[in-house]
Amino acid sequence: MREAPQRIGRLALVGLGLIGSSIARAARQYGLAETIVAIDRDPAVLERVRALGLADHATDDPAEGAAGADLVILCVPVGAVGPVAAALAGALRPGAILSDVGSVKGAVVAAVTPHLPEGVAFVPAHPVAGTEQSGPDAGFATLFQGRWCILTPPEGTDPAAVARVRAFWEGMGSVVETMSAAHHDLVLAITSHVPHLIAYNIVGTAADLETVTQSEVIKFSAGGFRDFTRIAASDPTMWRDVFLTNKEAVLEMLGRFNEDLAALARAIRWDDGDALHALFTRTRAIRRGIVAMGQETAEPDFGRRKG
Amino acid sequence: MREAPQRIGRLALVGLGLIGSSIARAARQYGLAETIVAIDRDPAVLERVRALGLADHATDDPAEGAAGADLVILCVPVGAVGPVAAALAGALRPGAILSDVGSVKGAVVAAVTPHLPEGVAFVPAHPVAGTEQSGPDAGFATLFQGRWCILTPPEGTDPAAVARVRAFWEGMGSVVETMSAAHHDLVLAITSHVPHLIAYNIVGTAADLETVTQSEVIKFSAGGFRDFTRIAASDPTMWRDVFLTNKEAVLEMLGRFNEDLAALARAIRWDDGDALHALFTRTRAIRRGIVAMGQETAEPDFGRRKG
Repeated sequence: MREAPQRIGRLALVGLGLIGSSIARAARQYGLAETIVAIDRDPAVLERVRALGLADHATDDPAEGAAGADLVILCVPVGAVGPVAAALAGALRPGAILSDVGSVKGAVVAAVTPHLPEGVAFVPAHPVAGTEQSGPDAGFATLFQGRWCILTPPEGTDPAAVARVRAFWEGMGSVVETMSAAHHDLVLAITSHVPHLIAYNIVGTAADLETVTQSEVIKFSAGGFRDFTRIAASDPTMWRDVFLTNKEAVLEMLGRFNEDLAALARAIRWDDGDALHALFTRTRAIRRGIVAMGQETAEPDFGRRKG
Repeated sequence: MREAPQRIGRLALVGLGLIGSSIARAARQYGLAETIVAIDRDPAVLERVRALGLADHATDDPAEGAAGADLVILCVPVGAVGPVAAALAGALRPGAILSDVGSVKGAVVAAVTPHLPEGVAFVPAHPVAGTEQSGPDAGFATLFQGRWCILTPPEGTDPAAVARVRAFWEGMGSVVETMSAAHHDLVLAITSHVPHLIAYNIVGTAADLETVTQSEVIKFSAGGFRDFTRIAASDPTMWRDVFLTNKEAVLEMLGRFNEDLAALARAIRWDDGDALHALFTRTRAIRRGIVAMGQETAEPDFGRRKG
């Protein structure tokens, strides 16, 4: 166990899904908090939290759970962040820090800010990490190791609060970067939201064909399709909220994607092999960059094959 | 080493890239051929073939390499299959079997058939397997284990020749299925070709943004984008040829993809959360089917994390 530079006294997590339960595990494993409080409105989740021993205290009451906390992290779908903040804000003590883990930041800042009591700092955070699985059983302590966590503190946020949240994420192994909420939402639209959208879309298209059966799609998926199904298996509620709350950036990036795809389709139709080859060569370099930056395994096929 | 039911006497492989060199390794490891001949026009590849000991004989002359062979497998990009068939067809002895591994079958049948000498059977094959890596060093003997191999013998093909090719692929661990070339090209358009096309496309789109830097795209790729970069790192020549030779099916499937994507964009624009949630729930089931059929690992994140 490594000692955190600024240990949190009382940590309250709202929503014990993949991310929330991973934070609970990491905070305990790396000694980042003295007391961990789990808040979830779903009795089945609370039961799993208790059975797995993820927290010192578990409750379905946001206000009760947040009372006396030093750091409260909202780990609910982006669309639920506003209502949850409204439910617990009154219970926050002065000096407490409120944070979140949402994949969209502009909408979260807009939803939370009106509820913030005097003396409480809001430090929005987004750990760029996850798997296609959901729920308290899917989390694990090392989920954030070597992954980026983006903070988007609004102008005027107490620097000490930002530093504490940064230290907390670094304690879980993340590399922390700060940027504006608006820029975050653009960056994530292209690196995460649009990829999820087109993955969901092609899996839907494939399921609806009348000339190719669903069983054929499943059987022959190793030719590329199965890579898309992984992210198209992500949590439906979380992703519905992402698209609805980052609408502008997603539609803008999707527009660019569509323009480029139309040009590519035209190159195919008119046998422009050189244009295809040039693009396909250029895209290889990006992959190499991602592997070189440690954001991806260098093993072929994602290292799916063991030995 | 397991004994193949019908061992091939002399096996000639044309093109020792990822697939050709994997066949060479598997044929040797599983005892499927007495003699292996490697044919490649690239001196650098032949040098690696000799250094790695992949074949009993290596040559850059297709006719010399194919002479006396019992089974010749063309493992070159689809666009090169016709010229290579023309170069070696005259050297094939009666009773020899010609095959290939192309990802497109209609165009391959059309390109090879005019060159077929009397008494030589053509049994087109497509192993649905691969990695994002290329070249003779990237191959491995177990690449085809548990993967499908699709045969598309034209009507009237000698059933004994089809049975031999089937046994050869089964000997390398593949599960073999037979269908028409036209149906193959439709199935692969949706399970492989269009997924590659949109992966190449989004990686290109991301590289060209002016509001988000390439370094940001690389850094924050773990949110979904990096999954696409894997298949967008596949061999550019192979994929150029696939799109140009399976144009009709690719453009048809791409049209459907685009219609569905337009509907999805409209649902986002008009806040139709129910439509999004319904699609995102449906796509999870397909993933489960792929995992259940053993075509994908059940481990989260492709099992990228080891322990």
